[in-house]
Amino acid sequence: MIFKTRTPFGVALDRFLKAIVPIEDTEVAPIREARGRVLARQIIAQRDEPNYRRAAMDGYAVIADDTLGASEHSPIALKIGKEVSRGAASRVHTGSKMPDQADAVVMVEDVERLGDVAEIRAQVHPFENVGLKGEDVSRGELVLAPGHRLRPADIGLLASLEVHDVTVYRQPDVAIIPTGEELVGEKPAEGEVVETNGLMNALLVEQWGARYRYRDIVTDARELIEDALLRDTDADLILTTGGTSVGIRDLVPEAVHKLGKVLVHGIAMSPAMPTALGLVENTPIACLPGFPVACLVASYAFAKPAIHRLEHVEREFERTATGTLASKVTGKPGSRTYARVAIRNERVEPVWASGSGILSSMTKADGFVIIPENVEAYDEGQPVEVVLFD
Amino acid sequence: MIFKTRTPFGVALDRFLKAIVPIEDTEVAPIREARGRVLARQIIAQRDEPNYRRAAMDGYAVIADDTLGASEHSPIALKIGKEVSRGAASRVHTGSKMPDQADAVVMVEDVERLGDVAEIRAQVHPFENVGLKGEDVSRGELVLAPGHRLRPADIGLLASLEVHDVTVYRQPDVAIIPTGEELVGEKPAEGEVVETNGLMNALLVEQWGARYRYRDIVTDARELIEDALLRDTDADLILTTGGTSVGIRDLVPEAVHKLGKVLVHGIAMSPAMPTALGLVENTPIACLPGFPVACLVASYAFAKPAIHRLEHVEREFERTATGTLASKVTGKPGSRTYARVAIRNERVEPVWASGSGILSSMTKADGFVIIPENVEAYDEGQPVEVVLFD
Repeated sequence: MIFKTRTPFGVALDRFLKAIVPIEDTEVAPIREARGRVLARQIIAQRDEPNYRRAAMDGYAVIADDTLGASEHSPIALKIGKEVSRGAASRVHTGSKMPDQADAVVMVEDVERLGDVAEIRAQVHPFENVGLKGEDVSRGELVLAPGHRLRPADIGLLASLEVHDVTVYRQPDVAIIPTGEELVGEKPAEGEVVETNGLMNALLVEQWGARYRYRDIVTDARELIEDALLRDTDADLILTTGGTSVGIRDLVPEAVHKLGKVLVHGIAMSPAMPTALGLVENTPIACLPGFPVACLVASYAFAKPAIHRLEHVEREFERTATGTLASKVTGKPGSRTYARVAIRNERVEPVWASGSGILSSMTKADGFVIIPENVEAYDEGQPVEVVLFD
Repeated sequence: MIFKTRTPFGVALDRFLKAIVPIEDTEVAPIREARGRVLARQIIAQRDEPNYRRAAMDGYAVIADDTLGASEHSPIALKIGKEVSRGAASRVHTGSKMPDQADAVVMVEDVERLGDVAEIRAQVHPFENVGLKGEDVSRGELVLAPGHRLRPADIGLLASLEVHDVTVYRQPDVAIIPTGEELVGEKPAEGEVVETNGLMNALLVEQWGARYRYRDIVTDARELIEDALLRDTDADLILTTGGTSVGIRDLVPEAVHKLGKVLVHGIAMSPAMPTALGLVENTPIACLPGFPVACLVASYAFAKPAIHRLEHVEREFERTATGTLASKVTGKPGSRTYARVAIRNERVEPVWASGSGILSSMTKADGFVIIPENVEAYDEGQPVEVVLFD
């Protein structure tokens, strides 16, 4: 198949994501093991946090009225005790429980202590330096919504609300099937290549929150490819590598066509133009190109958002850095172009490499600059955003 | 202790990092388990990758001289065979081994196949569309340097070079000791708070590449704190939470002073001003404030770079996103200010909360905007970088 028409990137991604049905299976996980997992049920606070009025400053809890007119030059003396009543103050520190009748805290800097007497040198208003019960979270409040990926701070908040377990979506299962007659697992003879695309995808997919099945290499034979695809239709997503390019080796998309539906084949992007997206029976599949760099770009572009969609995550921020371009980078006309770059002292330097087969260019690079279809080039000195490699 | 002088943030961080000795212990890990680990030895390629000349395009391998003058209108006919010699061409696909005598590839689009004859419709130069042996990596080349944190693409490259195991630095051991008399593990009575700072730090530290020891809560008693610190001097880093603030609860820095050295106490930053940094015997320690938000900010600001330094990682890009401010954010004069923000449709919205004790503000936020000491405020509409929460 020679690609006469290439689907615009945005159309391809949209078509693929629309064909993916998010996972409905859930499981219960203890919060300490739930980092990175995606909430399937909303969390409503069952209690106030904090569950008491607390001092918001180190100092002396008082009845605010008792400080009326207090200043550096006319301090007011209050008796220090455990409880607070008219004419009495009590030492408190930040976060500690306010004595019952106290309604304000005078900061420690504004108090001179003389034995059991506190000389108050500043006036405070009622509620000054006092944190109210439930000021952090009120009982009944929505704390976290479904589709939220749990970060350490979220788990901290859950712990503070005495939530011990959470219901999360099952992690997506991603089947990874490397194809190519030149591939071997190890000890390549001349003309052979060690399988690496599948391995890289396995590690990436794991980093993106999914589980993987890293399958054996399938050689370029129609029936073997079909068998391999059918074996993994119980996965949530299938990724194949290789066998998508123009010419004699268009086997994987052909197998998808036979067993399901090709949604897109040939995308206006560079590299990774020969990527195909589709369904095998009802299982979404991304057929990634065999060139390592193209394979990786396609994986970022399609596998990562597919995993997020499976997990109900609506938005995930890319890891990016910003800098100014050390030299011009040119896009491929009409294509969304991923230019590999390295960042040195906030200067973004293109990593030159002659083709998308050059894996070492990926390891020298920190990430890519994406040049949209309608942009010809980014000039030297231009500020750009770099999408960092995971 | 009341902070009369506050150390500038950059000075504090620099002093702390200079006191940290990177870990010298190494261990050997299989590459598939080495994602996120830091290389301790350089990797020199022991072979060429690829180990053969390969076609860089789908098409026909030829001797370039045979195509001299070929064009759409005056094609040149070559006989198709398995080997290439004068007058003969051989079908190749991208990545496949070049036949011995062939020195160029004519793209499939420029060839009309008629039975066993290839009509060549474009002239090619010697080496055109041919990838040389070792073009990705040459034998003897430095592939990866020590101090590099391994990403999936790096592991792919190592696999392709038949590197099966790598020598990496031992992961740092971080002891996390929560302190505070109001803290409980669960079921807080009125006036008590569930311990969350230590838990959050444990999960963060793990995410940053270290192992953690999450210790029991230590109450605010001098001897208990000293005992707890001394028990973990075999760790690579100690983090305490709480007990650093002004006033009566300055116990942790006092214990550090007694058992080692306080490098900094009181930093010109907001929140997390009361942070203390030092050494207990020779073990670096960061005493993080007890207010959850301040604790987390201090952990990002000091624990994260400390872990990187322990692992020999010279630079690690922050995860950032960019957007324009939906409203003005003001810095605390003279302090490095961390303003919590949420990002909605590329608009950066400050998350208002009355104090650094408000943990829920962290869960509503996506990250923070850092306002340097010498900047008064960032105005509405200004483009800003958001450091995303891990």
